[in-house]
Amino acid sequence: MSEPAANPTPPTEPPVEAGEEGASTSKKAAKKAEAKAKKEAEKAKRAAERAATMAAQTSAASEDHATENYGNETLGTKLSTDAVEVSLLEIGEEHVGKKVLLRGWIQNSRMQGAKMVFVEIRERGNWAIQGIAAANAEGTVSRQMVKWIGSVNLESFVIVEGTIEKPLEPVKACRVSGYEVHITKFFVHAAAPQILGMTLATANRPITNFSDEQAPVDEGVEKLSLTSTEPAGIPAATMLTHLDNIVMHKRAPVQQAIADIRVEVKDLFREYLKQRGFKERETRDCKLTCTSLIGAASEGGANVFRLPYFGTEAFLAQSPQFYKQIEIAGGRKRVFSISPVFRAENSNTPRHMTEFTGMDLEMETRDYHEAIDVLEGVLLYIFRGLKERCAAEIELVRSVYPSEDLLLPEPGKEVRLTFAEGQALLRAEGPEEFRNVSDEEDMSTAQEKALGALVREKYKTDFYVLDKFPEGARPFYAKEDPLNPKVTQAYDFFIRGQEVLSGGQRINDPVELEARMRKKGVDPNSPGLKEYVQVFRSGCPSHSGGGIGLDRVVSWFLNLPSVSLAAYYPRTPKRLSP
Amino acid sequence: MSEPAANPTPPTEPPVEAGEEGASTSKKAAKKAEAKAKKEAEKAKRAAERAATMAAQTSAASEDHATENYGNETLGTKLSTDAVEVSLLEIGEEHVGKKVLLRGWIQNSRMQGAKMVFVEIRERGNWAIQGIAAANAEGTVSRQMVKWIGSVNLESFVIVEGTIEKPLEPVKACRVSGYEVHITKFFVHAAAPQILGMTLATANRPITNFSDEQAPVDEGVEKLSLTSTEPAGIPAATMLTHLDNIVMHKRAPVQQAIADIRVEVKDLFREYLKQRGFKERETRDCKLTCTSLIGAASEGGANVFRLPYFGTEAFLAQSPQFYKQIEIAGGRKRVFSISPVFRAENSNTPRHMTEFTGMDLEMETRDYHEAIDVLEGVLLYIFRGLKERCAAEIELVRSVYPSEDLLLPEPGKEVRLTFAEGQALLRAEGPEEFRNVSDEEDMSTAQEKALGALVREKYKTDFYVLDKFPEGARPFYAKEDPLNPKVTQAYDFFIRGQEVLSGGQRINDPVELEARMRKKGVDPNSPGLKEYVQVFRSGCPSHSGGGIGLDRVVSWFLNLPSVSLAAYYPRTPKRLSP
Repeated sequence: MSEPAANPTPPTEPPVEAGEEGASTSKKAAKKAEAKAKKEAEKAKRAAERAATMAAQTSAASEDHATENYGNETLGTKLSTDAVEVSLLEIGEEHVGKKVLLRGWIQNSRMQGAKMVFVEIRERGNWAIQGIAAANAEGTVSRQMVKWIGSVNLESFVIVEGTIEKPLEPVKACRVSGYEVHITKFFVHAAAPQILGMTLATANRPITNFSDEQAPVDEGVEKLSLTSTEPAGIPAATMLTHLDNIVMHKRAPVQQAIADIRVEVKDLFREYLKQRGFKERETRDCKLTCTSLIGAASEGGANVFRLPYFGTEAFLAQSPQFYKQIEIAGGRKRVFSISPVFRAENSNTPRHMTEFTGMDLEMETRDYHEAIDVLEGVLLYIFRGLKERCAAEIELVRSVYPSEDLLLPEPGKEVRLTFAEGQALLRAEGPEEFRNVSDEEDMSTAQEKALGALVREKYKTDFYVLDKFPEGARPFYAKEDPLNPKVTQAYDFFIRGQEVLSGGQRINDPVELEARMRKKGVDPNSPGLKEYVQVFRSGCPSHSGGGIGLDRVVSWFLNLPSVSLAAYYPRTPKRLSP
Repeated sequence: MSEPAANPTPPTEPPVEAGEEGASTSKKAAKKAEAKAKKEAEKAKRAAERAATMAAQTSAASEDHATENYGNETLGTKLSTDAVEVSLLEIGEEHVGKKVLLRGWIQNSRMQGAKMVFVEIRERGNWAIQGIAAANAEGTVSRQMVKWIGSVNLESFVIVEGTIEKPLEPVKACRVSGYEVHITKFFVHAAAPQILGMTLATANRPITNFSDEQAPVDEGVEKLSLTSTEPAGIPAATMLTHLDNIVMHKRAPVQQAIADIRVEVKDLFREYLKQRGFKERETRDCKLTCTSLIGAASEGGANVFRLPYFGTEAFLAQSPQFYKQIEIAGGRKRVFSISPVFRAENSNTPRHMTEFTGMDLEMETRDYHEAIDVLEGVLLYIFRGLKERCAAEIELVRSVYPSEDLLLPEPGKEVRLTFAEGQALLRAEGPEEFRNVSDEEDMSTAQEKALGALVREKYKTDFYVLDKFPEGARPFYAKEDPLNPKVTQAYDFFIRGQEVLSGGQRINDPVELEARMRKKGVDPNSPGLKEYVQVFRSGCPSHSGGGIGLDRVVSWFLNLPSVSLAAYYPRTPKRLSP
């Protein structure tokens, strides 16, 4: 094929996004932008129709020798047998001058006169390459073919054959900036619509609003409300718009990066624990059960989902506590699990969802500090592992949601405070309103945040442990400190002043357990609790553990504005789809 | 400490199991055995009380210099600082003559006269060691201490200090047969009751009955019905008794081996797919959703659990299909997930549970055989991996549930038949009743089993693929074969004539999908289905995948009598606990 005379500037704005310009926070501006968008969309539609008519006329007028090299893919579509299918992630010097086959989405395209078209082909995440089709003298790439390529809707999935070449200068708009593909065949495998519910550019902008209230229909424009920081006139959208356009939400590089970081957290968690003799178990949080431990304990079980079950009633168990402890009593030294948790809590905050993922562990311990060691170790392993393995993903997320690096303690300088020490620090150096906080009352979210700031200043770390929570703040299965029964051998772990882990030593003696249940005002003989106590009657060793909220680890590590961003398909009291 | 003069035979029967002798399948014998057991239990209880009184008298009579070396563990219990805590899994020559600390359950004990006691200490699975305590002249191990050790209830969790020695001949009853521990200190950390709901020996016998019907109270003896094959007079129990005694069920070596095999299947699945560019995703089967894909398609959604959800109704999604396909449409090339599935099916068979674990994958494919390659590859990797990594566990399971080795095809000789070829084989060589089976009707379980036997005979493999199922046998999202629309590009995989995997190419074109929905009699505009079709409107590449039933893989690989045995906490229509 003939090469273009020079390397023109890469395309910047796709035609269908032309109507989405304008940057203002005011409602008026938003409405104006929407009206403009509608107008532009209609204009684009008409233009496309005109183009189609013209194309038909043109092809009738001048013969097209490239008809076998482009079009919609059919059973009869022929690809070259000598074209090697490559992934954009692996393109290198060895491919220069070679014929390749690429499969991906058109994320941008721009005609350059009537004989040349530029298309950005994206494979996954932000991995895209610039393609060029230029009409040649032999007619294997015709003017009609160039025009057709330029008319394909953005986000259509295409199959492209061409030769890998080096551009005169790096293609800034594409991650694969050192190479481009000179197109010889171009087929649409699956077409996208002319107007997408949300463009990729918008999907990759920071989400403006996480409320899961449906905006009234006549205020629909609010759903596409604009933020003040947006670049290049690309509007941002609300979480509702993102979820209503789940496919485009998923295609956004920032979402793929967050998802990749999420799965890496799970891998790091497994890796560290398996190296230390832990066995994975399905101590399910989402199990169907006939009674609910937490339900029984909290009387009424308001936080537990209930459902009809073959003539009786079932609960969606809210905590893996029961099952983790059965595993220990049942002869396992060290177990962990990663599983979904359901919580019927009507909390509408950036920290809560009705469905989340718990990473839990439980281990036989002679001293509960052994569990703190493992939990501290696994979280540091996760944080350090993410920085190392997901550097590119973290950078990508920060380009959309800016954040400071999570400050970690130097090895050997990990910070563990007792709850009382934390409160003392708040009283001494915290904000005025915390001058009189008590050692025997649980901390509020505001206190936790203030303490996080104090710890960061004093110890230069965003990650720390708070141990020995007051007796009143912990559940009936928490072991009291034998030397000071006002506190428990239970702990929380924090990052950026927010709790990501809760755990402690559990009572393994049935007599002690029943006594503490009575002290907490619950009946050890009630359904659920009776079966729970039974677990410890056959000789159960002492043990400790903890539960990590995966969604919280991901969103707070990245300092995202809502935990919903870290979930694959977030669930809130008002949102059950997709 | 003084060594015993000779190595006496290891203990065989624990005293509390003495009442469980007798081997017969008749009800009468079972009732007789139960009556005898009760009598013996009472006798044992009285004997223990007598022993306690005598012990008190004895200690008053002769002074005990070993009081600091045994008893119930308290805060004041002192262990030697030079004793190294070791796991039974790592004991070797380097420990001989060394002082060690062991933690485990007493699984057997036997007095040898008044001055010596043998105790088997079990750490996990069937890892146990023989311990010997013999009264010595110095009095650091006293007669009182020996007697006390002999009186500790079986399955109590103990902390033992002693020296590792080599026995004169291997201790056959223990897995750590080449070493024994000569006890110097012995503390009970957590006591078991005198009478366990189920002994370890019974827990390790094959389960006699998997019915989840509660036996009427006055026929309670049925729950402990005996099988005809039991060794050494150890009774077997029903699944109900096992689940009612979950801790003892879990401690049984056979159950720990099955659980370890189960987790290895998941690890092998992940390993193989991650090496091939798959990303783990939470395409949850157990998600709360506002509509149910399967529910919508099957009209009424009888197989789907429904529950109240903040003033509206939620479903427990029954299939990860929707979410797996969103991931592909959303720009992922290859995804897999391992997650719980709920199915509100009132089936009481050894193949069904209301909760199971699905291992699913979905991948972009140009030709759906690429997916068959991966699925066949991952299953063979799992089966071969289990044989290699879990040889000891498989042997242990077979000692309780005998089975033949799963016959696998030689590399390159994998068996793939079309559904029509399978039916033809059945017609030609199968049992009389399958002489007229049709190529257009789905197979029955009996047909599948018969075909499995024919394939085994003809191709020497228990594992094979059946491809191109008839159109009527597959759901609306299955892609029809473009060359023969009577069949789909969908397949099932079998082991031992039973289906472990179902999958196929999915329709990725929204127009084709809507047409097939209508052909199957479902409305593409109904709630749930409309959102499903929407996923394919933004350019979704062609893709294929499959779902593997983890519980089935485990139980059929091991040829277990019920899929419930492979689950951690099985759920059936009548069983919701523990």
